[in-house]
Amino acid sequence: MSDNGEYKRDLNYIPDRITADGRDGWPVEPGRYRLVVARACPWANRAVIVRRLLGLEPVLSMGIAGPVHDERSWSFDLDPGGKDPVLGIERLQEAFFKRDPEYPRGITVPAFVDVPSGQVVTNDFAQMTLDMSTEWTAHHRDGAPELYPDRLRDEIDDVAQKVFTDVNNAVYQCGFARSQEAYEHSYTKLFSRLDWLSERLATQRYLVGDTITEADVRLFTTLVRFDAVYHGHFKCNRQKLTELPVLWAYTRDLFQTPGFGDTIDFPQIKEHYYVVHKNVNPTGIVPLGPDVSGWPTPHGREELGGRPFGDGTPPGPPPADEQVPAL
Amino acid sequence: MSDNGEYKRDLNYIPDRITADGRDGWPVEPGRYRLVVARACPWANRAVIVRRLLGLEPVLSMGIAGPVHDERSWSFDLDPGGKDPVLGIERLQEAFFKRDPEYPRGITVPAFVDVPSGQVVTNDFAQMTLDMSTEWTAHHRDGAPELYPDRLRDEIDDVAQKVFTDVNNAVYQCGFARSQEAYEHSYTKLFSRLDWLSERLATQRYLVGDTITEADVRLFTTLVRFDAVYHGHFKCNRQKLTELPVLWAYTRDLFQTPGFGDTIDFPQIKEHYYVVHKNVNPTGIVPLGPDVSGWPTPHGREELGGRPFGDGTPPGPPPADEQVPAL
Repeated sequence: MSDNGEYKRDLNYIPDRITADGRDGWPVEPGRYRLVVARACPWANRAVIVRRLLGLEPVLSMGIAGPVHDERSWSFDLDPGGKDPVLGIERLQEAFFKRDPEYPRGITVPAFVDVPSGQVVTNDFAQMTLDMSTEWTAHHRDGAPELYPDRLRDEIDDVAQKVFTDVNNAVYQCGFARSQEAYEHSYTKLFSRLDWLSERLATQRYLVGDTITEADVRLFTTLVRFDAVYHGHFKCNRQKLTELPVLWAYTRDLFQTPGFGDTIDFPQIKEHYYVVHKNVNPTGIVPLGPDVSGWPTPHGREELGGRPFGDGTPPGPPPADEQVPAL
Repeated sequence: MSDNGEYKRDLNYIPDRITADGRDGWPVEPGRYRLVVARACPWANRAVIVRRLLGLEPVLSMGIAGPVHDERSWSFDLDPGGKDPVLGIERLQEAFFKRDPEYPRGITVPAFVDVPSGQVVTNDFAQMTLDMSTEWTAHHRDGAPELYPDRLRDEIDDVAQKVFTDVNNAVYQCGFARSQEAYEHSYTKLFSRLDWLSERLATQRYLVGDTITEADVRLFTTLVRFDAVYHGHFKCNRQKLTELPVLWAYTRDLFQTPGFGDTIDFPQIKEHYYVVHKNVNPTGIVPLGPDVSGWPTPHGREELGGRPFGDGTPPGPPPADEQVPAL
């Protein structure tokens, strides 16, 4: 918290990178690492989507923490016996403490864990997805899209920075504000940016270029949660996403694209926010709404042109043990 | 609270009535009584609307408590010096204690206060509006509508009972539930009834007969608050009112009818719920949304026929000191 009641995200993560050349001591290697996520978390959701789009499932396994956690953070309560079957731990915290017994910061998802040593390699979510696109290329599936192509990096970085500050993080600043002034500042920033995005996306199908990129992944994970949690729980309530026609169609388009909607578990998303944030929702009661029946409806965005996967192809269905419940 | 976490409204009010024949000791008399309300409160809003529609302003004055109150309930903090200018009291509680120094129940609005003695006559909100329609007839304005006509009373009572249980009170039961089960029960009851109302109002302009009646007043005061507070704050979030086409048009139609929308103060409504209910919203931060620009838009309900005021006429504008801020 800053003095004016504004929520500040701690952006100090473990900065190691898994790279093709292994310069940080963590070379790309099939089967060596485990991506630990929670379905609820929008930052982890980025990595879940990118892994799906690039077809990294066979070389990078995934552990899924449950939606609810206590002050010791994410735990594997969805798994048989409450233990991650590969890492053999109950709490993600254990992998952070293997890396540093005095680890002083938040235990966050997504995290890459080195399976042989049980240590967290990194939880630097912004770098993790970029490295999946650029360092793991040898293991991408046939037909994988280019999510971070060289020629578009400056534009993707620029848009992603705006989206991070004014959308991804701003919704949290609305919800965790401890002064009316800080809340109103964040709300105004958020909806101004959503208006800017609506205008940009009115005439082009995707945020950058004419195919899906990292920029779309990053915007999607916040927008898909908007009506389920941010609108009510975080007071981001000028309109619902369903009342912003361009963004609602854009988000539906992505939702219906293989690799996006098939990673979304609305019940886990709602349970996480409404149960974990006791300071916002003391009763822990989880809303039954919103109605989600609109997600599979036609979006009409094909008319704008664009080719979701460029010269590539959509991914196949998720592995059987990674399926989310139907809407 | 009941054992299962369901919120139970205390419906024991002071049951005296102000009548034409004065049988309870409180005869209808111009200038003798003061209607005490708060703009925020949906139960008080009924009386504010009925007083406007019937043109009782010259004979029944109105005191307006502020939107926020503490554990000692409503106070006149909007008035100069924090005192009601007619009753000379700071808190409505004082008028209840004049009536009964041991008054044991909630200090609620609306209340009729006998100005000479400073005592509350009644706070029985459901009876108060009916008596304004049926006992104060000698003082109704020319062209006042019949809000509770003899021939429609059974039907009005029947609809009003359904609306009370499943809408007016159910939104509170959603918001104040202390168990997931109790919340889900109330949510289901609420939206089933809203579906029933949508169906009924799809083909008729008003709830009972072809003019506005007490039944419409009672439904309006909850629906007009739906998106501003009940949708988010009370987790009544299957859809917003703006996403329920029939009810949204019906509520807009009434909002645009003189005597309805000119009693609505959205800032006071939001401030009351979000600040007073610390158990639901611990930070006390008041949302900036929702966007209210849709309220004056065309509703198309004239096509269904109906004559809002029957053989009567709409009321003129509110007195200068009772105007609400523009949207």
